[in-house]
Amino acid sequence: MEFNYVELEIGEDRAYVTMNRPEKRNALSLVHMRELIEAFSLVAGSEVAGVVLRAKGPVFSAGHDFRDMAGQDLFYMRKLLATCTELMTLIGEIPQVVVAQVHALATAAGAQLVASCDLAVASKAAGFAAPGGKGGWFCHTPMVAISHSIGRKRAAEMAFTGDVIDAITAAQWGLINYAVEPDELESATEDLLSRATRGSRYSKSFGKEILYRQMDLPIDKAYDLAVEAMASASQTQDAQEGMSAFLEKRSPKWQHR
Amino acid sequence: MEFNYVELEIGEDRAYVTMNRPEKRNALSLVHMRELIEAFSLVAGSEVAGVVLRAKGPVFSAGHDFRDMAGQDLFYMRKLLATCTELMTLIGEIPQVVVAQVHALATAAGAQLVASCDLAVASKAAGFAAPGGKGGWFCHTPMVAISHSIGRKRAAEMAFTGDVIDAITAAQWGLINYAVEPDELESATEDLLSRATRGSRYSKSFGKEILYRQMDLPIDKAYDLAVEAMASASQTQDAQEGMSAFLEKRSPKWQHR
Amino acid sequence: MEFNYVELEIGEDRAYVTMNRPEKRNALSLVHMRELIEAFSLVAGSEVAGVVLRAKGPVFSAGHDFRDMAGQDLFYMRKLLATCTELMTLIGEIPQVVVAQVHALATAAGAQLVASCDLAVASKAAGFAAPGGKGGWFCHTPMVAISHSIGRKRAAEMAFTGDVIDAITAAQWGLINYAVEPDELESATEDLLSRATRGSRYSKSFGKEILYRQMDLPIDKAYDLAVEAMASASQTQDAQEGMSAFLEKRSPKWQHR
Repeated sequence: MEFNYVELEIGEDRAYVTMNRPEKRNALSLVHMRELIEAFSLVAGSEVAGVVLRAKGPVFSAGHDFRDMAGQDLFYMRKLLATCTELMTLIGEIPQVVVAQVHALATAAGAQLVASCDLAVASKAAGFAAPGGKGGWFCHTPMVAISHSIGRKRAAEMAFTGDVIDAITAAQWGLINYAVEPDELESATEDLLSRATRGSRYSKSFGKEILYRQMDLPIDKAYDLAVEAMASASQTQDAQEGMSAFLEKRSPKWQHR
Repeated sequence: MEFNYVELEIGEDRAYVTMNRPEKRNALSLVHMRELIEAFSLVAGSEVAGVVLRAKGPVFSAGHDFRDMAGQDLFYMRKLLATCTELMTLIGEIPQVVVAQVHALATAAGAQLVASCDLAVASKAAGFAAPGGKGGWFCHTPMVAISHSIGRKRAAEMAFTGDVIDAITAAQWGLINYAVEPDELESATEDLLSRATRGSRYSKSFGKEILYRQMDLPIDKAYDLAVEAMASASQTQDAQEGMSAFLEKRSPKWQHR
Repeated sequence: MEFNYVELEIGEDRAYVTMNRPEKRNALSLVHMRELIEAFSLVAGSEVAGVVLRAKGPVFSAGHDFRDMAGQDLFYMRKLLATCTELMTLIGEIPQVVVAQVHALATAAGAQLVASCDLAVASKAAGFAAPGGKGGWFCHTPMVAISHSIGRKRAAEMAFTGDVIDAITAAQWGLINYAVEPDELESATEDLLSRATRGSRYSKSFGKEILYRQMDLPIDKAYDLAVEAMASASQTQDAQEGMSAFLEKRSPKWQHR
């Protein structure tokens, strides 16, 4: 697959997925989303431990592209939104840790994209909004990811007003992890991803899957799942190596790095 | 229906529901709750885009009225609490955006009322409590709305101590949206409601329904619902008008205002 | 049962469960967890209204004991983790209010223990981590309690980085209730527990059960449960006494103190 709107760089230890359609404010057209799905799928099959999702141009992502959608019928729209949901869900499913590096405004499905990443660092110059609420087409699907990350009243405020919240507020509400000075954005992202990709990748990718599955369960069901997962994981070579290394006061050597 | 404890004002663009039983600290007697249900039902059938819920007197609302309840049997109590739940639920179901304008203390079902509104602005002189926890009758039902808005540890603290948290803390915890100076309460409420009622009302009322339904679902089920809702909504005249106006760089004209 | 690693003090009004295996950093070995289960079970059957969970030594609790686990098979590990889950769940089930008094680092199942208490006060010298994420064995079960207390992005950060968050951050995120100066830890804990144990114990223990059950339900189901609980509770002697005392402007006398 050739990329037109996305740049993909898969290094030894980490990958970079860069949205590069600045003249369209990185709007998530159907083609753009398919390229992102392809890029994250390639990352998923690679050996890297982590991925940075970032963007070029004056806007991180303006969400869906109205040019793609105006006048389209129900069947087309369902397909478009199913593709969008596939992208958002895929980010939570790939074995790598995904960090959004948000340098500027992220709105609608663009804000959803940030909310769907495992972690997020934003420049203080960035902002987040679900603008459908002040237009003619409510941000139903962006609000799924956003409202599952922040409290009800704050989700309602974003959904109904459509106003932009700044990065500091987004960090206070838990929509992102850190709001930093613009010139520290890259180093803060790298630092967070370094901290988040230490240890056995095998262990962490299994951990990511169970973490998200149990989060959506009531606590008793969550324990049912997590106890089995943790017991099974204890039998892996990396878990045993981790314990041995700790008890022997030496550095562990992971089988799966 | 004639109102004794509630004042209802339905304007062109917004409505005001004002609790006015100051001598009883706006206690939610059965009659008072029925008047509030009637008031919100009338608002629901009106053309306004938003509602302010406010109160007169030294207390926003002290919750249920013990005079109503002491010595009553189980059947009466179930009816009373079912009526209370009907009121709280109705606020989340009417097509308008509901903002609580909280000038003073809101306790028990009074705090639940604030938690049940879509949005809330409070004076720094206001406070919130679930006092049943320090008495003989735990605030079971108030804690439903409160605990679904704030974190577990904070909910437990409110529930077990029964102590009042101030408005600034309530805003930090996400129980309300803003804590403002007393003399800015009205203007801050009006401002928030103005921002929250822009755009197509038709789109927003559908959005409100789906927002709350998906919030209570695990993410995969939430997407199933939201994708269908967003696709269906794309076919409405207001969604198409919003997209066209954006692409044509003109102001939209909503069918449903 | 004789205790080796735990000190249990059951007073007239409150109990103290103290982990005292400082040389092992209060690691939660199978024996240690069984002693904690026994201790909380004895507290549950006692007349006290509240319990403080605290620890001696340089660490609050380092979580599981790798010596207990390295080389153990799947059946042993499932039993160990089932015992751990029994302990964590028991704390939420006993009729008393449980406050963690955290003077130092709490990691993995140690952090889970704090997250599982009803309330928590920590010294500013304390910290919290789920270190499995940077090792070979992900903190699946600790993250159940932690992720149900804080937001998704923050849970992901703790889970993936394994880094320690300080007590002030933990309080901002809602993992604990208060972060205080080290020399105020004991008095702040006592103060919180005093405030959290006022009123009818009978009412509060029923309240605790319903509070946690409804928290895990969607709002409509939560109301179904809470309405029945609140109606039933209204018929108890303590609820009636609370209402009568309020209406008669006198101090209540609880049947169950």
